[in-house]
Amino acid sequence: MSTEVLDQLLHAIAGRANRLHGRDVLLTWDHALDDLRNLLDVAEVLRQLRAENIATRCFDSGLAVSLFRDQSTRTRFSFASAANLLGLAVQDLDETKSQIAHGETVRESAVMISFLSEVVGIRDDMYLGAGHAFMLEVGAALDEAHRAGVLPVRPPVVNLQCDVDHPTQSLADLQHLVGEFGSLEALKGRKLVMSWTYSPSYGKPLSVPQGIIGLMTRLGMDVVLAHPEGYGLIPEVVDRAARQARESGGRFTVTHDMAEAFSGADIVYPKSWAPYAVMERRTELLRARDTAGLAELERACLAQNAEHAAWTCDRAMMDRTRDGRAHYLHCLPADITGVSCERGEVSAEVFDQHRDALYREAGHKPYVIAAMILAGRFADPAGVLRALAERGRPPAAG
Amino acid sequence: MSTEVLDQLLHAIAGRANRLHGRDVLLTWDHALDDLRNLLDVAEVLRQLRAENIATRCFDSGLAVSLFRDQSTRTRFSFASAANLLGLAVQDLDETKSQIAHGETVRESAVMISFLSEVVGIRDDMYLGAGHAFMLEVGAALDEAHRAGVLPVRPPVVNLQCDVDHPTQSLADLQHLVGEFGSLEALKGRKLVMSWTYSPSYGKPLSVPQGIIGLMTRLGMDVVLAHPEGYGLIPEVVDRAARQARESGGRFTVTHDMAEAFSGADIVYPKSWAPYAVMERRTELLRARDTAGLAELERACLAQNAEHAAWTCDRAMMDRTRDGRAHYLHCLPADITGVSCERGEVSAEVFDQHRDALYREAGHKPYVIAAMILAGRFADPAGVLRALAERGRPPAAG
Amino acid sequence: MSTEVLDQLLHAIAGRANRLHGRDVLLTWDHALDDLRNLLDVAEVLRQLRAENIATRCFDSGLAVSLFRDQSTRTRFSFASAANLLGLAVQDLDETKSQIAHGETVRESAVMISFLSEVVGIRDDMYLGAGHAFMLEVGAALDEAHRAGVLPVRPPVVNLQCDVDHPTQSLADLQHLVGEFGSLEALKGRKLVMSWTYSPSYGKPLSVPQGIIGLMTRLGMDVVLAHPEGYGLIPEVVDRAARQARESGGRFTVTHDMAEAFSGADIVYPKSWAPYAVMERRTELLRARDTAGLAELERACLAQNAEHAAWTCDRAMMDRTRDGRAHYLHCLPADITGVSCERGEVSAEVFDQHRDALYREAGHKPYVIAAMILAGRFADPAGVLRALAERGRPPAAG
Repeated sequence: MSTEVLDQLLHAIAGRANRLHGRDVLLTWDHALDDLRNLLDVAEVLRQLRAENIATRCFDSGLAVSLFRDQSTRTRFSFASAANLLGLAVQDLDETKSQIAHGETVRESAVMISFLSEVVGIRDDMYLGAGHAFMLEVGAALDEAHRAGVLPVRPPVVNLQCDVDHPTQSLADLQHLVGEFGSLEALKGRKLVMSWTYSPSYGKPLSVPQGIIGLMTRLGMDVVLAHPEGYGLIPEVVDRAARQARESGGRFTVTHDMAEAFSGADIVYPKSWAPYAVMERRTELLRARDTAGLAELERACLAQNAEHAAWTCDRAMMDRTRDGRAHYLHCLPADITGVSCERGEVSAEVFDQHRDALYREAGHKPYVIAAMILAGRFADPAGVLRALAERGRPPAAG
Repeated sequence: MSTEVLDQLLHAIAGRANRLHGRDVLLTWDHALDDLRNLLDVAEVLRQLRAENIATRCFDSGLAVSLFRDQSTRTRFSFASAANLLGLAVQDLDETKSQIAHGETVRESAVMISFLSEVVGIRDDMYLGAGHAFMLEVGAALDEAHRAGVLPVRPPVVNLQCDVDHPTQSLADLQHLVGEFGSLEALKGRKLVMSWTYSPSYGKPLSVPQGIIGLMTRLGMDVVLAHPEGYGLIPEVVDRAARQARESGGRFTVTHDMAEAFSGADIVYPKSWAPYAVMERRTELLRARDTAGLAELERACLAQNAEHAAWTCDRAMMDRTRDGRAHYLHCLPADITGVSCERGEVSAEVFDQHRDALYREAGHKPYVIAAMILAGRFADPAGVLRALAERGRPPAAG
Repeated sequence: MSTEVLDQLLHAIAGRANRLHGRDVLLTWDHALDDLRNLLDVAEVLRQLRAENIATRCFDSGLAVSLFRDQSTRTRFSFASAANLLGLAVQDLDETKSQIAHGETVRESAVMISFLSEVVGIRDDMYLGAGHAFMLEVGAALDEAHRAGVLPVRPPVVNLQCDVDHPTQSLADLQHLVGEFGSLEALKGRKLVMSWTYSPSYGKPLSVPQGIIGLMTRLGMDVVLAHPEGYGLIPEVVDRAARQARESGGRFTVTHDMAEAFSGADIVYPKSWAPYAVMERRTELLRARDTAGLAELERACLAQNAEHAAWTCDRAMMDRTRDGRAHYLHCLPADITGVSCERGEVSAEVFDQHRDALYREAGHKPYVIAAMILAGRFADPAGVLRALAERGRPPAAG
């Protein structure tokens, strides 16, 4: 990174008040666009410093607590990478070995794990209506303990995926687009299609498509949500997307025709998810531990999916996009036709063509998470980053 | 912390020979009171440095090995926090993935995990007669390997709870009392009640009440152990408590009347435990893997507990204490009536009133553990702490 | 370590081109002997610095990813120790919580875990024909992602045991022998016996004996492989050992007589393993998930082992070695007669006599792994080590 580019980024960060200091990032739309810009810029500085072999350790010690309520390898590594990048050690709270449930227990456990914590990262996307609520509950407990003087530091809560939003994913996706198009401003007017696709699995969460329409509609883009009838998202999020599009001078359309949606698109994000109604029903059954009901729901849902197996991102579909060369996004892993399944979200040809770009897209996530930690814990992130850049010490001796 | 207070604490630490250097802290009563004072003072300095945002990293690298033979979230986090505070990385020895058993295996495994270890933390409280013995065995193996030149460093063993004592808990509790009463000396003559209470669960370990009477009777306090008939602790520990009380100019009484015990108390520690005789029987059955016998023992024990459901810490009971305002201690989590169970150790009202104090009490544990590591590994802890204070570097840049 | 010895070692390291920079160490025989000498010398400098309480942290941050496809405590701790010694944090990839399988998935996962990784350590020795192949696949994926600019750093892959070789073990064993005999050159002409022994367990991997004959035959030693008929190793590795022995001016013999093999030996490595043919059959059955077949194979194999129960390393056997005082090696844990089993690989008397030496042998492994990381990531390891030695900072303050 040239000194000039670094100076521009640091100047931009310093020019915006850091309103994320001491705050949790749970839903992107709860934060001003300038605060999200700050996250992207901080992440970019960190990524560039690392690329230039400059150490970015800004904590001497401290724990980064992670709590994964469902299995995850990639997000786990992203969080660990982000924590490590800044000098924090990950301490995983394994609920199979403990008993965080609700109410009094959440309040107490949140405090007990935070005496020396600098950040708490949570992933909880199993139950509709539960993940976001749980994160709010943890945040409130930390607030209370901090106010009471029990915790010297109020660690920010980072949402590593909940039932409503997936901010570290959508911001990493956005960072990738900024890289591909040159700037956030260059995205204005671009057509982005968030499309459902067929997958032989079921129960995929809604947080990715919701996170995408909840973020991209704020940028003046032409956002299209495409899915078969009956595959809708949480209505409040869809309503919000429409409102945000109007306010940002963009457009938001829902269509039930994938081919039409892809026509002239600049960016496509074809990905499977379970219909909102199914997720609601599934949540009820999970809570009731109704195994038979769950098996029946899965069977019915897979049968329903199979009716829409034509919803797949293949060469013909991509040919409909602008010059046949739309940017293809995915949160990974994708269900690839003929590779990971017989028929899936994307053809092997399309996936192969975009593989390196997809990996670069994923590569932004650790830096986005690190930016959330840095902005959450430091009043003046630009100052911290400038000090790191000026120190210029390589992360490794010799 | 004012420079004056820091100087006083450092002066006090420097004034006492560090006899814990290179030694294990397994039972508080195996160590002179001055050595325990040192631990409290070191812990307090670390806590204050952290509160003032001064980095306390004194290891450049090194492993803190943890071995939990039963499930634990809070102690796990306390140990991880303590290790991290000083710059050590936790490496957990998961026995479900390995096979540490006894004899030759313990000796060998203790060495294999210690080539680069700075401390070994062990929690083993499942079997009466086993936990403390296991820690001694590990310590002896480390001694032998150190003498033979196999290990460049003899890492101290820290008892994170055994069948006999729970020194990190009792010392954290004591640190909390020092904070509440102003000094260790101010505790002299105060009435402390360690009382059994009803709980709907069974098999709770004896180490907490034993640790409390084994420590507090050395301070000239008026210590009362209250429990229903048949709910006694390990007799040797009770005998020791009586002897220590005499020697320290305090008192030690055993009573079977909770209300009488609470009368005029300054400090109460109401907590359930399983009777010693039950724990002995349970250990036999566990070793014999007698599932039916264990179920029957549990049934009988819960029925016996139910006869003493009146042993609970509610408003009426607290009203009997000095001015109705005794300090309420608990190692957490507590069984709270109407919250975590129908009838439990404490009423929600009493618990709520003392919640912040209970959390502060728990908050001392990481610092107590860190003090054990620091005193165990450094000949001159005051010198190390003074260097940290003078360096005055914040734990985080910017 | 005297300044003179340090200078000699650093001079030797600096004098050899570091051809391991950016390369994986999967099989010792894929690397020139001078590269292995470099690893030993780097490991020795690190060990000596640690013994003199000089900090060896040369990474400011960074992840050391570990992937254990079978259970391991010792290697896990060795890897964690090595990573920690250099300043890296271990992030374990738990396959039970993820889904690394093959093909596309391996390629993608290898990248996803490596965005901020400095090394990837893999242990995979369950399936004959699989472990080494898997490591090559991971390495190729990392190469590709590095070339495409997806990964700023290409982390080296360290083989922590595969189906073919166990380089961290064989090099630690060699380092131990260098210490015992004074130099690598002093091993020339020495008789080393890698001998099968009886064990009541079955399915022990071939990688240790293969690693030993694949390495020691390159040093001009008189290497004898002793085992009952039908207990052979992978034929290609045995052929290679014979060829290497010829090229290095040493000898390589296969015998089916343990007593004869031990006659006049300078070094013995008595250890059980499963016959190559059994491992092949076992791999087929494992892949077919043929539980009944596996049980039958185990039964047959244990019965076959029992016919060779006389193959054990006891006093009488040791008496046949040079002056009755051969060096006894083992990768640990050993099956000790009368201690860990009724009849095993070694008598308690022989084991006890060599215990400290065995522990020292094991103690080299963390340093050998650290040397692989250091040589893999730094172009000039001598420069890095010299900087550490000159900085001379203790790993702990005070």
